[in-house]
This record gives sequence, structure tokens and C-alpha cells, in this order.
Amino acid sequence: MPDSAFPDVMDKLVSLCKRRGFIFQSSEIYGGAGSVWDYGPLGVELKKNVKDRWWHSMVRMRDDVEGLDAAILMHPRVWEASGHVAGFVDPLVDCRACKGRFRADKLEDARCPRKPSRHPGEFEQCQLTEARQFNLMFETRMGALEDTASTVYLRPETAQGIFVNFLNVQQSTRQKVPFGIAQIGKAFRNEITPGNFVFRTREFEQMEMQYFVDPEADHMAAFEAWKTDRMAWHRALGLSEDRLHFHQHTPQELAHYARAAFDIQFDFGGTLGFQEIEGVHHRSDFDLGRHQEYSGKKLEYIDQEAKRRYVPYVIETSVGADRVTLAALVNAYREEEVPGEAEGRVVLGLHPAIAPIKAGVFPLTKKDGMPEFAQRVARELRAEFPVFFDESGAIGRRYRRQDEVGTPFGITVDGQTMEDGTVTVRDRDTLAQERVAADRLREVLRGRLAA
Amino acid sequence: MPDSAFPDVMDKLVSLCKRRGFIFQSSEIYGGAGSVWDYGPLGVELKKNVKDRWWHSMVRMRDDVEGLDAAILMHPRVWEASGHVAGFVDPLVDCRACKGRFRADKLEDARCPRKPSRHPGEFEQCQLTEARQFNLMFETRMGALEDTASTVYLRPETAQGIFVNFLNVQQSTRQKVPFGIAQIGKAFRNEITPGNFVFRTREFEQMEMQYFVDPEADHMAAFEAWKTDRMAWHRALGLSEDRLHFHQHTPQELAHYARAAFDIQFDFGGTLGFQEIEGVHHRSDFDLGRHQEYSGKKLEYIDQEAKRRYVPYVIETSVGADRVTLAALVNAYREEEVPGEAEGRVVLGLHPAIAPIKAGVFPLTKKDGMPEFAQRVARELRAEFPVFFDESGAIGRRYRRQDEVGTPFGITVDGQTMEDGTVTVRDRDTLAQERVAADRLREVLRGRLAA
Repeated sequence: MPDSAFPDVMDKLVSLCKRRGFIFQSSEIYGGAGSVWDYGPLGVELKKNVKDRWWHSMVRMRDDVEGLDAAILMHPRVWEASGHVAGFVDPLVDCRACKGRFRADKLEDARCPRKPSRHPGEFEQCQLTEARQFNLMFETRMGALEDTASTVYLRPETAQGIFVNFLNVQQSTRQKVPFGIAQIGKAFRNEITPGNFVFRTREFEQMEMQYFVDPEADHMAAFEAWKTDRMAWHRALGLSEDRLHFHQHTPQELAHYARAAFDIQFDFGGTLGFQEIEGVHHRSDFDLGRHQEYSGKKLEYIDQEAKRRYVPYVIETSVGADRVTLAALVNAYREEEVPGEAEGRVVLGLHPAIAPIKAGVFPLTKKDGMPEFAQRVARELRAEFPVFFDESGAIGRRYRRQDEVGTPFGITVDGQTMEDGTVTVRDRDTLAQERVAADRLREVLRGRLAA
Repeated sequence: MPDSAFPDVMDKLVSLCKRRGFIFQSSEIYGGAGSVWDYGPLGVELKKNVKDRWWHSMVRMRDDVEGLDAAILMHPRVWEASGHVAGFVDPLVDCRACKGRFRADKLEDARCPRKPSRHPGEFEQCQLTEARQFNLMFETRMGALEDTASTVYLRPETAQGIFVNFLNVQQSTRQKVPFGIAQIGKAFRNEITPGNFVFRTREFEQMEMQYFVDPEADHMAAFEAWKTDRMAWHRALGLSEDRLHFHQHTPQELAHYARAAFDIQFDFGGTLGFQEIEGVHHRSDFDLGRHQEYSGKKLEYIDQEAKRRYVPYVIETSVGADRVTLAALVNAYREEEVPGEAEGRVVLGLHPAIAPIKAGVFPLTKKDGMPEFAQRVARELRAEFPVFFDESGAIGRRYRRQDEVGTPFGITVDGQTMEDGTVTVRDRDTLAQERVAADRLREVLRGRLAA
């Protein structure tokens, strides 16, 4: 695939994210934990906004999708049934000379640990072992009783928690097929080659939904409807239309049980280019069928009206919460000149709905009662919107600091405020300023944020 | 401690929680995973409401507390510095005869695996080994490279993610001491004796806040203020005042570095009685001091104005999200007679702000356009409040089903609705019904939910 037409902004983003408190390297004071990241004060709000938006549209606004929050630790048989114990593996080879370990199928991309400056695939000397299968699941032991302590896994995906709870949810909610179950939660994969910031990490968060349909109904229409819905969701999040496309799985990529599979890809720019941020997959009755077989428990839906019982087909939509958060940051990052100013500015043009801070509140100067007035404005807005009060430095500099973290509105208390009670509201993108009565601010912001 | 004056409702709650979709046993179709639980459609909303309420009051409403979301996997040295590798242990003994494993300090509570019907502490025969120290942290291996794959732990508490990020957060936000860092996240402990539903589980969620104060300032006043704030939070959540109290750590319970420690306990009823749901602890400079020592990195705050640098003291507030959710359920559960009706009712008297469903919407009958009108009402409310539409069965039965899951309001579309556009709004607790114009429902519900 050719390099993207969009610039590579990843290094600048990594730096901005650390400096402004979006994302820090985990355990940084100890030299970092391998490809694990912590969300800082602004990052946690951004990601929470993305997750809440998904939850609202997938669960709360629909009466045919139920929420779930299954645990990370599950019975180990779950992963035998799902195929992960046998099949969730990468082939690895060891080099007896340099002690490196590499993916046998990606040797041409590997760098020699003894000569990391050489081109990938050029080893100083290498005596490779036979390839062995390395399972990507993290293993641990649960329980202290000698006879019953068992090997359990950190789930590599949240979906299985939904499958094993299919009947619990259906029966407790009295839902009728077609209906779905959605959840957000952490998953873990001991990746051989993690990287690209929070794009591929060993600990990550998924937002998954399984939609259960009648195999004798028009399940392909349901699949198409979800494809359309999910693409629309990413666009509504503000991701540029020209950075999004569908990638249809080739026959080689398609799992043997899958009827159809499309990934939604986002163009991250540079050499990374288009990468998967969501999968929309038609999984047939594979998962429920396997759990039925391995658990010995029926996982059939009983259609009372049609007097039929069957194992439903599953349409799955699976988003990486960290990936879509990263996509939103990449999509939003821009550097631009400002007319009439020598210095340019960095802007995160985040959709206002996911911006971590909705408004900066600034007294123009530290005198004449402006700080007190601005504090009062901030306090009144805070119950409804995250706001940031800042009184230090030149006003232009304070605007720039908020532009850089994506704050859509800047509210300034100035001399005129003290006379007529109006403040200026500055728009992050157009730089237009408008005077608004301070006591109408909540209403004005509410309207602009909903737009 | 004597048994509680409140009844033991745990068995009834476990049953209600499964039947109505609050909480399921994890991997139930495989016989369950040891003391791990999944939150169902209503449980995930209830717990999310509790967490969002905490986040709103602790982070969004305060300008002196910043949010964080640190990863579960951290550098292993973190747990050496924190003292968990050496000290987070229970003494265990094995019995060579029955192969059981028991806590050496709790032998009198143990049951013989060969004769489980006997009283605790009565073994058929027991040849005990010497006590060995069993570490409660779950261990796993991260990374595939032979030389660098390392033993890592599932964090047993979220707090260390805050300590190691102290300077990252302080510098990126430009906060001045005193300020706090708050986060919500999963933690894991390989408990020997988990139990009491979601009270003590191997996988659980914490809501922790560390507040950094100047050791030369009045840090005990900050400690007292947090004690007061946190108790008020639990009361505002609807937990009864007579089920809440402070337990002050005795000199034996108090950690050597702690200046003071109080637990907020809730009376769960029956023999369980008062148990910790939150800890408010003054930890001095122990944690930051240890990380400074183990990482070799300075973790000092620089006070520019006073020209001083120091390692701050820490006041910690630590809530169990699952425990406080369980407390809310126990607190809310009641069975009562209904005047003029033969059958009583079960009610979850949850605070409306955390109730998973805010309103049930019911057409009185399935004719005369009532279902369509009610569907329209439900659709209009759903953008703002989680609502449940139900048209099946007698209206009394539909009310009871919502009472049982804590829905504060029942909205009924009846014959009069079709004439004058008003609906009845039934109050879960008082059973009072009031007629309200359908197009004023959002406003009315908003007002009642904020009350």
C-alpha cells in the first residue's frame, strides 16, 4: 500500500500528549512498561467522551441493544471453545547467536539485536531454531487451593463475555431476536510487535456489540445496516470522510465460519496509512455453537410465536476505544498561520462533543473585579460542562494553550463585562468573537455543543 | 461484633440480581469462574451511574482534582517500591492428608474438604505443613523476547498508578499543592476467601483519589475535610445515615507510616453487618518517598513562591465501586404490603440519580392508539433519560416489575391521554399519581430527578 497523502503527525502528537497531559508512558519513572500507556487528565476525559458517546448511541438510544460489563477473568474453558487456546498464536523463532526472538512470518521486518543499525532482515549471524507457536494470551493462576488453582487467561477480547451471557441477558430482559448486547472493557494481548503509540498495545479497551439474528431471516440486510450505522458513527465523531473507508476481507483473510467481514479503516497518515479501527463481521452461529458444544448447555433462542428454536447468527461490531481516540487526535491535529500574527498556532480541531474541556474562562486582566467575575462564570458552568479557569499570562497565550488541547470556546471577561455583564465567546476554529450576556452562557454553550 | 439489626437480604438480592439482569455469575454456563461476577443490562447502568456520580463530584466539579486512567499492567519495580512484593501476603498451610490449603491465621474458620459438613475448624485428620507466605498478586509474563520477557503483576490497587504519575500530572496541568489526582479502574487480588456476592471478589473496581498536601501546612485539617466530604457523598447517594459510620483504625491496624486512618463502614445487615466500603487514610510521604528511592527519580514538588522543594504528604480516599454498588442495592431493597392489594411488592428504593431506568412507559391497553402514543413518548424521553417501554400484561404487574428494579417513575398513556394529551406519572415510593401534559414530561422528569 502506498504511503498516505496525509502527513505523519505521530511524533508531534506523542510529544503534545505528554506535555499537555493526554497520554503518558506507563511507569515512566521506571523506564516504562512495554507498550502500555496511561491516560492523563485530558486524555481520560477525551476517551471517556468517546466511550460515553458510543454507549449512548449503541445502548441508551436503542431499545434493541442491552448493555453488559463482563469480567476480564473467565473460566478457562471459554478460551478452548472460542479457539484462542489452540489458534491465537504467532509462529516464533529464536536466534541462538543473538538470543533475539522473531516472528517467523515477519523475518524480513526484524532487526538484529546485535546490529540494530542495520536494515531489517540483515542479521550479523543468525542460527534460527524451528518455528514454535507462541500464544498471545496472558496467563495467570487463580485460587490458592493446591488441587483447584487453575490457569486462567486475561481475556484477549470482550466478545466472549457476551456470548456466554447470551441467554442470561435474553431471559432477564425478555428481548426478542433480533437484538444485541454491547459492552466496553479492557482486553490484553501479549503482542510480539506492539507500537505506533496507542495504536497497538498490550493492554487496550474494546467497544463491542453482538447482534443476534434469525438465520432464516434476512441476516445480510442486518449486516449491511450495521455497516452503514457504524461508518456514520465515525463520521459523526468528526473523522474526515476522506480518511475513512471500508476494507473488505479477502477470501484469505476471511475466517472459515464468517459469512462476510469488513473493517472500517482510518488513514493515520505517513507510512502507517489506512489501518483498522473497527471490524463489522458476520460470524454465523460459530461462537454460540462452540459454547454449546463445550459447555453442554443449550444456547438456543426459543421463538414462542413461530414455535421454533435455533442458535442465532451473530453480526459483530468491534471498535478499539484507544484506536478511535488516537484517530480523533490525528484527525484533529493541525498547525496553521494566524492572520496578522508572527507565530502560528497548533489546534486540535476535536468535535466539541468529545473535547475534554468545553470552555476556557479568562479574566482579561487581574484587576477591576475581573478575576472574581470570571471565577463565578466558571463555577456556574462547571456543573454542566468541564471548564478551565486561567488567569496567568497574556490573553493570546491563554487562547493558544486551549486551542492546542481542542477547547472549542474561549470566554473572556473584560472591561465591558464590568459595565454591561456581557462576555466575549471566541470560537476555536473561526476565531470569531461574539458578545453574549454572562447569564445566558449556559444556554448558548448548550446550543453550540449540540449543533 | 454483634449481628446487625438490619435483616440479611443477600440471598434475595443475589436471586433478584440474576433474574432481572443486574449481576450474573461469570462464565455461568461453565460452572462459574471463582468469585468473579458480570454486570448485566441493569447492573452495568447502576454501576456506571455510581461511577459517573463519583467522577462528577470528585473531578469535574472541583478545580483542584485532576483525572487519570493508568493502565493495569505496570513496571514490576512499582510493586517492590510499594511493598506489595514483600508484604502483600497471607500465611498459608497445606494439609498433607486432605490436600486442603488454609490461612494459618484463620484455621478456626476453615472447613475440612473431606468432611465439609463438620463445624469449621474440625478436621477429619490434618497434617499441617509449616506456614508459607502466599502473595495475593496475580502474576503473568509480558513480552516474547527470551531475555527481556518479565514477570509482571495485575495491579492489586489503582493508587500506585497515581503516585508514579504525580509529576507528569502536576507539570502538565500546572496545578499547585494542595491538589489531587483521581481515577477509576480495575484491580485484582487472588483472595483466599472471597465471598459475600460482589463484596469481596478477585476482580474488582476501585475509585481512588490521592490529595497532595504540604507537610508544613495543616495537613490534618485536609484529612478532616476529606473525611467529612466522603461521608456526605455516601449519604447523598441515598445510603441511610443509620447504616453508615466511621471506623477508626486501632494502633494495631494502623500502618507504620500512616498518620491517621478511618474506614467508612456500611451495615450490610445479618451476620455480615458493618463492613468497609471506603478508606480515608493519611499516608504521610511514604509512597512518593519509596518511589523516589526505587526509581532514583526526584518526586518533589517545587513551590516557586516559597522557594521550597518537598515530597508532599498524601491523603487518600479509596472506594470499592462494587462494594458501594452492593451497598446501594442492600440499602434499597424492601418488601412491603400495598394497601388494598393481596400481593405485596418488592421495591428497590434506589436514589433516582443512580436508578438504571428513570421511567417506565406504558400504554394502558393495546388499542385506540395508546401503544403508538406511548412509543412516541418513550422515543422523546430516551435521548435524555434511560426509559423502558412495556406493553405486555396487566398494568399493575408492569408497575411491580419496575418497582423491583428501582425505576422511580411510571408513565401511563390511557384513555384520557387520547383526549387531552396528558399522561399519569406514578411515583415509585409514594404510589401517588399525577396527570402531566405529555409535552412537559422531559421538563417534569428533569426537575424530579435533580431534586
